[in-house]
Amino acid sequence: MSHQQGGHISLSPDEGQIVQAITRERPMSRTELARRLSCSRAKAGELVNDLIGRGILEDVDTGRKTRSRQVGINHELGVVLGVDLGTTSLDVALADLGGRIITHHAEPWAVERGPQTTLNRVHEVALELARPFGIPVEGIRAVGMGVPGPVRFPDGFIIGEHFLPGWDGLIAREHLARLFPNAVITVDNDANVMAIGSMRQGRGGDVSSFVFVKVGTGIGAGVVVDRKLVRGATSTAGHIGHTCVDFNGPICRCGNHGCLEAMAAGPAIARRAREAALAGRSPILADCLKRRGGALTAQDVSEAAAQGDAASLNIIQESGRMIGDILAGVVNVLNPDLVIVGGGVSKSGYQFLAAIRRGILNRSYPYATVRLRIEYSPIADRVGVIGCSTLATDWLFEVEGKSLEAANAVGF
Amino acid sequence: MSHQQGGHISLSPDEGQIVQAITRERPMSRTELARRLSCSRAKAGELVNDLIGRGILEDVDTGRKTRSRQVGINHELGVVLGVDLGTTSLDVALADLGGRIITHHAEPWAVERGPQTTLNRVHEVALELARPFGIPVEGIRAVGMGVPGPVRFPDGFIIGEHFLPGWDGLIAREHLARLFPNAVITVDNDANVMAIGSMRQGRGGDVSSFVFVKVGTGIGAGVVVDRKLVRGATSTAGHIGHTCVDFNGPICRCGNHGCLEAMAAGPAIARRAREAALAGRSPILADCLKRRGGALTAQDVSEAAAQGDAASLNIIQESGRMIGDILAGVVNVLNPDLVIVGGGVSKSGYQFLAAIRRGILNRSYPYATVRLRIEYSPIADRVGVIGCSTLATDWLFEVEGKSLEAANAVGF
Repeated sequence: MSHQQGGHISLSPDEGQIVQAITRERPMSRTELARRLSCSRAKAGELVNDLIGRGILEDVDTGRKTRSRQVGINHELGVVLGVDLGTTSLDVALADLGGRIITHHAEPWAVERGPQTTLNRVHEVALELARPFGIPVEGIRAVGMGVPGPVRFPDGFIIGEHFLPGWDGLIAREHLARLFPNAVITVDNDANVMAIGSMRQGRGGDVSSFVFVKVGTGIGAGVVVDRKLVRGATSTAGHIGHTCVDFNGPICRCGNHGCLEAMAAGPAIARRAREAALAGRSPILADCLKRRGGALTAQDVSEAAAQGDAASLNIIQESGRMIGDILAGVVNVLNPDLVIVGGGVSKSGYQFLAAIRRGILNRSYPYATVRLRIEYSPIADRVGVIGCSTLATDWLFEVEGKSLEAANAVGF
Repeated sequence: MSHQQGGHISLSPDEGQIVQAITRERPMSRTELARRLSCSRAKAGELVNDLIGRGILEDVDTGRKTRSRQVGINHELGVVLGVDLGTTSLDVALADLGGRIITHHAEPWAVERGPQTTLNRVHEVALELARPFGIPVEGIRAVGMGVPGPVRFPDGFIIGEHFLPGWDGLIAREHLARLFPNAVITVDNDANVMAIGSMRQGRGGDVSSFVFVKVGTGIGAGVVVDRKLVRGATSTAGHIGHTCVDFNGPICRCGNHGCLEAMAAGPAIARRAREAALAGRSPILADCLKRRGGALTAQDVSEAAAQGDAASLNIIQESGRMIGDILAGVVNVLNPDLVIVGGGVSKSGYQFLAAIRRGILNRSYPYATVRLRIEYSPIADRVGVIGCSTLATDWLFEVEGKSLEAANAVGF
């Protein structure tokens, strides 16, 4: 097999376990794989040799001549593309099938430019990233993409006209398939892919259940229970940004009033900052507003807060508190081990995190927080593309018609 | 094996699958079991014969002489006891190992009588129930008990001094073990066992994820994701009753202010009714208050509402709306297929359910409710004891040191 042939790679349940262990962790010896499969060394050796014969695995040269030669994914099998689309940013990365990012590009991008322009840009960036490594477009065997809105999974139908103007009803998978003809395409919500990324390479790997909260232009969460992403009955699990905080609050993108997102996400922080500047409550913000020609961003507020501006600090803390209030409900329902905070607004410093913590502790059942950790993502800048690459790899392989992700769910 | 020997019954993974299929569903033929295990008819026959030899299974006389003879659990193996303790009620049932309730007794009971008196009463009732069937105490092979407060699982350590006065810190499992010397004991939270009961014999069996909400003296939920109960990091998942609704609200049993429970559960309904009666807003409630010697219950309010008392109806609707508001957050997080409402206050009629529905729909993300059903439990009166019996059976059997419940979690 070579990367000239596209489509899913079919595996038996035993083979699936081997490929899953190697793609999720690292190259392993036949002896270690035998232990993982609870089978004999001979049987594991047979399975491995067969996978090598099919071009899926290869012997890894560890420089040591030992009995414990290791096998990894055949690097000729190709690479995967991770595409983390935010409302105002685009991150594209190439990764190997072992989940290691080979190369990564980030740029500001406005999602409202629409699917055509955006996906063409994704294609362009992907080719630019691949060129120095001599990887042709056919070498991209799978694409995993996260978008900042609800996505029907697994078909990639984009639900939210309010979140992705011009994208509504689009089967994003089909468009990407035309651009990447040799790739298996998977599209998911951005907070979901960040949760997957945290599970694989972030703090989420150490615990059984956690919630990844993305705070940026919107607010969303990826929910992991029992080491498995929860997608829900209509693919909207984790949609905490549209829980109502205040019926009398401002209108949200979704049409309702006073959703968490409309009260506490980036644009709400910017709006409050503008009000503070115009009301004369913050000379720093007023200066900034003048320089920016009448508009402010959440980042301006962070910077002003870092300079000691009390009004800015208050805005950030208020936003954190509201997010914490809603997360308190999440903590009461799921009693997770960990809450991870990421997304652009999570760069607002430790005071924002402290306010989220306070909000959670104030409103949740005390025993539910006995062991709870609440932390920033230590890999916030790349957790999205890591998650997208992981998702892509998991969906490239198929075990009895199921992706590795789904197969794992039923514990094959 | 006979019921003279107590303790867990150990099974191999294959045997576990057989016992699980039969205890959760019904007696089955060897051919059907072979299909379930994806093994040959001969291999299934061998496993079944071995389990018959050990006294765990028996051939079931279906009255038909066919090749498809069925096997069920050996009835000589014994029975299980389900004990559903509420704050003001005690339900005890004997069930066979196939989950069928043999006999059931319900009585009013005040949990504040303390563990000694309560567990002695449980013992007494169990023996009374068993006597007509000729079942000695040694025939009770497992006990599953639900209590109205948080329980550390699986050791049965009772956490909440506020919920179970006098029970705090008690290892309820040890006490029960002295009373039922031949039984494997499992203790869990009441809403959790109701969720388990709904999964086995209620509406919860048809869906992948649902939330069972118990509204009684307290408010709690059992959360099921992927057909598995979510217990959380410190066994408090589903503890929605202590999500703060109003910081300026009345003090809750848990010490915080304005928890959902303090605002909307049975005692809060009774308190509001008393206020309405004393303020002259409801002649019916005022009458009732006089008859009752100064105290009212949630049931009095339901009855007054049924007679057309607007003040009572308003109290019930207000309670339902607050519960719905908090459930909206739960729906946004989990995007379940179904919300089931049970517990004593769920007998307040369709207006209460309608108010819960309205609260959920008002505050949740629209796409999350596209397919959502919100219903009363159709087996509310026995869902607790069914869940307790199920839990007992699942923990009686052990597969590689794990209960059937936990083994199922890893999909053996």
